[in-house]
Amino acid sequence: MKTAEKILLTSLELFNQQGEANVTCVDIALELDISPGNLYYHFRGKEVIVNALFDLYLARASKILVSPSSEELNIERFFYYLYCLLDSAHLYRFIYRNPTDLIHKYPTIARSFEKLLHSKEQAFAAILEHFQQQGTLHVTDSQLQSLTQLINLVFTQSQNYFLLTKHDVESEDISFQSLCWIHHSIAPYLTIDEAAKHALMASIKSQATSINTNADGALRQEPIRIG
Amino acid sequence: MKTAEKILLTSLELFNQQGEANVTCVDIALELDISPGNLYYHFRGKEVIVNALFDLYLARASKILVSPSSEELNIERFFYYLYCLLDSAHLYRFIYRNPTDLIHKYPTIARSFEKLLHSKEQAFAAILEHFQQQGTLHVTDSQLQSLTQLINLVFTQSQNYFLLTKHDVESEDISFQSLCWIHHSIAPYLTIDEAAKHALMASIKSQATSINTNADGALRQEPIRIG
Repeated sequence: MKTAEKILLTSLELFNQQGEANVTCVDIALELDISPGNLYYHFRGKEVIVNALFDLYLARASKILVSPSSEELNIERFFYYLYCLLDSAHLYRFIYRNPTDLIHKYPTIARSFEKLLHSKEQAFAAILEHFQQQGTLHVTDSQLQSLTQLINLVFTQSQNYFLLTKHDVESEDISFQSLCWIHHSIAPYLTIDEAAKHALMASIKSQATSINTNADGALRQEPIRIG
Repeated sequence: MKTAEKILLTSLELFNQQGEANVTCVDIALELDISPGNLYYHFRGKEVIVNALFDLYLARASKILVSPSSEELNIERFFYYLYCLLDSAHLYRFIYRNPTDLIHKYPTIARSFEKLLHSKEQAFAAILEHFQQQGTLHVTDSQLQSLTQLINLVFTQSQNYFLLTKHDVESEDISFQSLCWIHHSIAPYLTIDEAAKHALMASIKSQATSINTNADGALRQEPIRIG
């Protein structure tokens, strides 16, 4: 592995563990056992590293975010899609540890982050509207809006909530837990019968387990496309 | 008003507007047009100010948090209770801007904050269980757990979400919006009829409006008690 890649991986690990604000370039160099000068040769300061990691996250999330095709789209696939997005956010979880301050500190990230959040919100709303028109989801327009916002709240804030309530954020169960909350918010509005709802929950659980045992699973899957 | 009170009020205002991390003691003294020495005479550093404000928040929240009496408790009163808690959190909103870093920075706050979060979670769970036993809320135990966690997520993280999505966090509509999310999560499990659900929503809206026009309304109300 090239030094630049090693620096990025180590930085990601330290940022995820301790929070970006609590890690300096010297900490990263020490962890890698290289001189700060060598690190500086590859990345001219922490901001450059943070930006590079954010770009990696953006590329990964965008690849998944491609709106799903309406023909192939069903509730089960929607939850799989949400899981892949949650999983990529979990991989770069330092971004969601304290996004308000991160944005305040790095204005270049602020714009991309805002765009990503907006794209997510639009994608969720489009998918839910599709289910609404299809009759799978029985909601009024204001319930649909609440639901979209709740999914977004879970997406952007569950990490912070888990840190606050002393859950083990290293564990990937965290993404599954977030998915359960989304399932709780959406399930009563689904017109599928109780047996299908139970099957959905079981399928969410098994998908979560299969991704957990397959480190790069989310990336190897083809994104679902909208026609 | 005494100087010490003025210092606390001004600090609260600046912390709420700019975030505690972005405000120094010199900023507070400048805003009050007093010397940093005079400020230091009253509060020996920012940590003392932050602690004093946190204690004020804790006193206010604890007063409301007193578990509601089971005879008097109905869904409408539960939402009013949630609104009062949200309203007090909104008044001290700097605490919820970035709680993970606040706790990391001020270990004395960490313990009280953890206790408060735990008390809230227990109070919500107890109230929901009461509704479950009463038959007003038709949920399984795992749904009840999800619901309690979702309410807690909204409580601790909506502020951060609003900052991230560029909502006007100064506005008190924010508390009403949070209440709508909780309503969305709980409504499908309520056994009351559609008309009663609409009446509940209308009542939430009118209570929110009456508190908004009555700056200290939440405090003047007697806390609801559990027998």
